[in-house]
Amino acid sequence: MPSFSRLIRFLANDGRIYYGDALLPRGVTDIAQATQARVVRGSIFGQHTVTDEVADVRTLLSPLAPEDVRTVRCLGLNYALHAKESGMALPQYPVLFYKPATSLAGPTDPIPVAPVAQEGEGLDYECELVAVIGKKCKDVLEEDALSVVLGYAIGNDVSHRDWQLKRGGGQWSVGKGFDGWAPWGPGIVAADQINPQALAIKTTLNGKTVQESSTSDMIFNVRQAIAFLSRGTTLLPGDLIFTGTPSGVGMGRNPKLWLQDGDVVEVSLEGVGTCTNRVVFEKERSKL
Amino acid sequence: MPSFSRLIRFLANDGRIYYGDALLPRGVTDIAQATQARVVRGSIFGQHTVTDEVADVRTLLSPLAPEDVRTVRCLGLNYALHAKESGMALPQYPVLFYKPATSLAGPTDPIPVAPVAQEGEGLDYECELVAVIGKKCKDVLEEDALSVVLGYAIGNDVSHRDWQLKRGGGQWSVGKGFDGWAPWGPGIVAADQINPQALAIKTTLNGKTVQESSTSDMIFNVRQAIAFLSRGTTLLPGDLIFTGTPSGVGMGRNPKLWLQDGDVVEVSLEGVGTCTNRVVFEKERSKL
Repeated sequence: MPSFSRLIRFLANDGRIYYGDALLPRGVTDIAQATQARVVRGSIFGQHTVTDEVADVRTLLSPLAPEDVRTVRCLGLNYALHAKESGMALPQYPVLFYKPATSLAGPTDPIPVAPVAQEGEGLDYECELVAVIGKKCKDVLEEDALSVVLGYAIGNDVSHRDWQLKRGGGQWSVGKGFDGWAPWGPGIVAADQINPQALAIKTTLNGKTVQESSTSDMIFNVRQAIAFLSRGTTLLPGDLIFTGTPSGVGMGRNPKLWLQDGDVVEVSLEGVGTCTNRVVFEKERSKL
Repeated sequence: MPSFSRLIRFLANDGRIYYGDALLPRGVTDIAQATQARVVRGSIFGQHTVTDEVADVRTLLSPLAPEDVRTVRCLGLNYALHAKESGMALPQYPVLFYKPATSLAGPTDPIPVAPVAQEGEGLDYECELVAVIGKKCKDVLEEDALSVVLGYAIGNDVSHRDWQLKRGGGQWSVGKGFDGWAPWGPGIVAADQINPQALAIKTTLNGKTVQESSTSDMIFNVRQAIAFLSRGTTLLPGDLIFTGTPSGVGMGRNPKLWLQDGDVVEVSLEGVGTCTNRVVFEKERSKL
């Protein structure tokens, strides 16, 4: 499996895009602070080498190239307090939904809000640990489940509550699938570097903490999620699993706290780092 | 756009896999009957040529290679009588859910039923017109919508009602996403060859007709579906849209009619053809 510790994908100062193993200044653990990386050559999911070539990071990108991502699975209601604030029962089985790969974006990209998503109300944030599948697998046993993980990142499952809950006929897809509504990154910490169930996770909105929890509070942990999701179902390298959000979302507050044009949302995960994304309301429906 | 009339992907008698333009015997319109095809060279979504080279068809395959399919979107409750038999309200907006690309299978492949999908009850069939997106697009206007379609096929949105409706926390994903639960084909009829809203559509189970309707009965037609689904959302070449099923599913019957091991399900669409798939209950959970 991977020979890197912190995989990033980045635009370098030379104008080219690379995969790299992030080099962090002493004492820094947030991959978003990486200014240099050792260039990774080869296939991320196959043979690859962390070279001695060091490149300067200009901009961190979505940690996997769009063509390297397959299916994006997401768990709903996977933290007890969030289920409660959503007014929903604790799930008996993991609650699965999907986001299209076109919803993925990089750790500093804007969150575009198209006119359709400015209708109604309920633009919301959801910080989530993201598990990246590294091996083709099926019917994985819980005890083997972490062996199919390439690594972990942090993501924001941006959601529009009216479209998700009131206009979708009960299905959450429309309200969660718009372009750019799954910023993630800032990089992927290798699975052997971190315990996915013991990490502080939080969201800040314009600098104020709005979600703050620990991945130890998940109802279905990463092992259980992979075992469940792979039953009768092939998982592929480059599949992502967004593992659910803790309490503190805007929908769960009184009064409600909806994202506004220009807001800056930061989602962060201990040992991984921070995605910082600005909400940008789009003025016009674009053309074909 | 395409220069073919009926795109197929097939294993040829020479042991190789080709894309081809199906050659049908006189008077035959079901692509499943194709025994020969003109080989198509190049990129299906870009520059390609229908050559004069004729190959013999041994087996028809999923009409697009797995790596050529991106996101599979599906509409729920898109025929009025089916919404009624499901006990659900007519949708105000298209109801969107997804199937993972790993659920796709060819027009004669078995429908594998893993042990997890043998739990509970409710194994069901759903014949659906499938629209294949041919161009990258976003915010498509209804009047332009058919211009982004490569063509049409028929698919079976195989579903497990307990997992879909009782065990998914309200989300339909688990009960519809197992490997091989979206057989489709037998080929793709080019968009300019057919009117997608005037086609007979049906399912037979072990030779007996169980669904029989017309695509003219869709609540949201293909134009409306593409316009809606592309709002704020990029559609990519190789995206599929399963456009919903008419009445007659097993769940809507009294008594219920669930698929059994060994059953043969045929879904067919006028002018396109038939997918014939046998239900195969798997005995053991496979290993990692």
